[in-house]
Amino acid sequence: MRENRVIHTAKNIKIKDPILIVGLPGVGHVGKLVAEHLVEELESTKIIEIYSPHFPPQVLVDENSVTRMVNNEIHACKAGTHDLLVLIGDHQSNTTNGHYELCGLYLDLAEEFGVKRVYTLGGFPTGQLTHIDEVLGAVNKFELKTELEEIGVKFKSNEPGGGIVGASGLMLGLCKLRGIDAACLMGMTSGYIVDPKSAQSLLKIVCKILNVEIDASPLEERAKEMEKIVARLKEYEQQQQTQVIQEIGSGEEDLRYIG
Amino acid sequence: MRENRVIHTAKNIKIKDPILIVGLPGVGHVGKLVAEHLVEELESTKIIEIYSPHFPPQVLVDENSVTRMVNNEIHACKAGTHDLLVLIGDHQSNTTNGHYELCGLYLDLAEEFGVKRVYTLGGFPTGQLTHIDEVLGAVNKFELKTELEEIGVKFKSNEPGGGIVGASGLMLGLCKLRGIDAACLMGMTSGYIVDPKSAQSLLKIVCKILNVEIDASPLEERAKEMEKIVARLKEYEQQQQTQVIQEIGSGEEDLRYIG
Amino acid sequence: MRENRVIHTAKNIKIKDPILIVGLPGVGHVGKLVAEHLVEELESTKIIEIYSPHFPPQVLVDENSVTRMVNNEIHACKAGTHDLLVLIGDHQSNTTNGHYELCGLYLDLAEEFGVKRVYTLGGFPTGQLTHIDEVLGAVNKFELKTELEEIGVKFKSNEPGGGIVGASGLMLGLCKLRGIDAACLMGMTSGYIVDPKSAQSLLKIVCKILNVEIDASPLEERAKEMEKIVARLKEYEQQQQTQVIQEIGSGEEDLRYIG
Amino acid sequence: MRENRVIHTAKNIKIKDPILIVGLPGVGHVGKLVAEHLVEELESTKIIEIYSPHFPPQVLVDENSVTRMVNNEIHACKAGTHDLLVLIGDHQSNTTNGHYELCGLYLDLAEEFGVKRVYTLGGFPTGQLTHIDEVLGAVNKFELKTELEEIGVKFKSNEPGGGIVGASGLMLGLCKLRGIDAACLMGMTSGYIVDPKSAQSLLKIVCKILNVEIDASPLEERAKEMEKIVARLKEYEQQQQTQVIQEIGSGEEDLRYIG
Repeated sequence: MRENRVIHTAKNIKIKDPILIVGLPGVGHVGKLVAEHLVEELESTKIIEIYSPHFPPQVLVDENSVTRMVNNEIHACKAGTHDLLVLIGDHQSNTTNGHYELCGLYLDLAEEFGVKRVYTLGGFPTGQLTHIDEVLGAVNKFELKTELEEIGVKFKSNEPGGGIVGASGLMLGLCKLRGIDAACLMGMTSGYIVDPKSAQSLLKIVCKILNVEIDASPLEERAKEMEKIVARLKEYEQQQQTQVIQEIGSGEEDLRYIG
Repeated sequence: MRENRVIHTAKNIKIKDPILIVGLPGVGHVGKLVAEHLVEELESTKIIEIYSPHFPPQVLVDENSVTRMVNNEIHACKAGTHDLLVLIGDHQSNTTNGHYELCGLYLDLAEEFGVKRVYTLGGFPTGQLTHIDEVLGAVNKFELKTELEEIGVKFKSNEPGGGIVGASGLMLGLCKLRGIDAACLMGMTSGYIVDPKSAQSLLKIVCKILNVEIDASPLEERAKEMEKIVARLKEYEQQQQTQVIQEIGSGEEDLRYIG
Repeated sequence: MRENRVIHTAKNIKIKDPILIVGLPGVGHVGKLVAEHLVEELESTKIIEIYSPHFPPQVLVDENSVTRMVNNEIHACKAGTHDLLVLIGDHQSNTTNGHYELCGLYLDLAEEFGVKRVYTLGGFPTGQLTHIDEVLGAVNKFELKTELEEIGVKFKSNEPGGGIVGASGLMLGLCKLRGIDAACLMGMTSGYIVDPKSAQSLLKIVCKILNVEIDASPLEERAKEMEKIVARLKEYEQQQQTQVIQEIGSGEEDLRYIG
Repeated sequence: MRENRVIHTAKNIKIKDPILIVGLPGVGHVGKLVAEHLVEELESTKIIEIYSPHFPPQVLVDENSVTRMVNNEIHACKAGTHDLLVLIGDHQSNTTNGHYELCGLYLDLAEEFGVKRVYTLGGFPTGQLTHIDEVLGAVNKFELKTELEEIGVKFKSNEPGGGIVGASGLMLGLCKLRGIDAACLMGMTSGYIVDPKSAQSLLKIVCKILNVEIDASPLEERAKEMEKIVARLKEYEQQQQTQVIQEIGSGEEDLRYIG
């Protein structure tokens, strides 16, 4: 298997002017949690499976000991008056050029369905364990900003400072080259843990965009479980900080390549 | 040499409805030990040599100082009423996409011989030096599970938790895409050493599947040698654990990305 | 997107016998600073955008939260009587063979415009924080040396000792294969920081080559900011050296692979 | 530049039944030293330059500050009654599959000249600084062994134990697939330094094979310089050993994957 392989698992599905929503694994798995939640809560049909030599050479094992090759999938969902294509998956590309190849493939498929708007979902790493109920946005066209600001998405100059790495970012760039409007929506997350609480914040924004209500209780439950871990991490962090302050004293930073 | 190279080293071999058995290097070299043992103990003919730019750029040197390029090989073996193709080799692919390419190639060759059933052999890392006489299974089709349970293969929900990485796993995924039944059989092994004892456990299961008896004494001998090393490792481990407990005291785990 | 993508963003630009100037990110970002400065200070038009699967899979975010895919660009500039093509960009190739592929592409484009002379701009790492107002040269044809020496470029036998790595060097090699004259001009820089002061030294030489005057004040301002950081680094370095001398005492070097 | 590039720098050179000698960089640079010495001491003409995207993206700078792209070269040399093709170069491939591709290319070129015998030259790492005046051999055909033993090459069962990695080994494997006789000749060397003393030992064997006498004095001079460094390394090693013995006491080895 040298080439990506696209399997159409459902045909004759009526999909009209769909919006593409991308939620692949990434920082805090925030985007993945929200996109998978959409697929579970909405009326959904898996329409496409994507296999690729750029994914890790691996199968996953389910509760019946049945294996499944790692892949990405597109699900068609109904969200109120909107048709959605939701891209979810086990992994992003293993290689640099694989990212370009796969994102190009996702857009080829999206264009076949007439997608004119793309939202990529991700997490913005704050490095802090305290939850911030905010969603940061970035757009591939200035006009989208106002529209998203109106429903509560925050925009900050030059943020994220290091750019947006991986499919969440690259899709915006490739969409621009194809004339497709696209925005990246990022839940604020520590970056240390899988973060269903951040996913709840992001889900609220996605619901406003789609003008639908979606039950968030499964995410809430997972968030409660994680809170215990977060509490322990905070404790641990405090211990570490005390120690670090005692050891260093003066607070010397790394000054390399500041400029 | 830019392409994989397949050399047919024996022709006019009669092979009827063969089962493919895959035993490449991996955890504890359990799969490799069993597959090589089959080739040695059964009536066997090497029928195919596979060379690939995805293998390390290297030759091995034999007892006569004669070199041999690292490769994979397929041997045709008679096991009672069954015809077998046994895939053994020095290495798995060096690269991610090489894994996909080579596993695809193995299946192309298997399909030429009419293979309809594949068993990949491997090791399941327990992290513990105490031998467990058990073989864990995973299947690419639910129906295979009952069949294998009946002869003593164990199945555990979602195990291995991290999936099955490399040819042992990927073959199951690629077989599913081609409609070929496949199971992965894993001997329990510490993960620290080459494990002929685990190979014996796995060999017993393979013999039941094939309904043959195969002399296990060469594996037994190697197992005895390894037991001395295991004994020393256990001693060392105990020392280390004592030390670690003394140093840490409280038993703080790594909490990153639990979720 | 499997292939490099070249977008011509301006047509019907009159460009006559242009000189190609290459200033991509590298040691101290010296070459990048100078080339970007040329584009800003001269009458310039962006004529080409280059996107490539060999660049990191990433977008950058601007002050309006609008994303831009990482790329390289060619700008056409007027410098007195000279027409320039100035190649600038966010990144060099992520992969070894990508370097060869992209540098080949840059030269394909350059040859379409009739380029017969190429200057690649870079930094030479001295490992010392004290500024040296000097530009080191290397040429792909002996005759160029005298010409550059006359305007103040220094040449030192076999320097840089480790060769010139990346686009700055490779372009000289590929130019030679195509019969294009090329020189690499390197500002002396510590190698620890982005170095606008070194960029000023390099800019002076570039102005002499082009026989133009270009306002250096924006670089001067950045250089002043950096000087504060350099001062702190020097202080830090002195502390470290004192410490190192105390710890080692005898000054044992690493002797591996000297020869 | 996406493809390897072969430039024929001399034509109409009469070459009859040549032997190919390969001396690329490797352990102790022993093979490289000997092959370059042959080119310098014999009547030689550079006939081929090879450039490749699998080499590091880099130029080297000579004493006149003139750059040269890293490459490999084939020189035609007269050694008594023998015609030689000597392959030398700055680097081996940067990538796994590049090794296969380039070695294949070398043999394509060799076969155009009718090469029927190949010697690859390398170093065998002993891990010890004391010089051993011995050359270890490996062959791709049993018959070659006796022939080489007669002129003093040593052969040891299964040595080198880890196989022969890189062009020196791979060439033997690829030669076998093409039906070309090939042997690898390895000078014993510490593995810590460039080793002209080991190169002298290897040169003696090469001279016997070719039945010629070649002045070894330039290697002798370099060997004398290196001896001073070796002396210092030995001293340092002794200090270290003393220290290690004091710290560990019991001499625990790493037992992982012994088998």
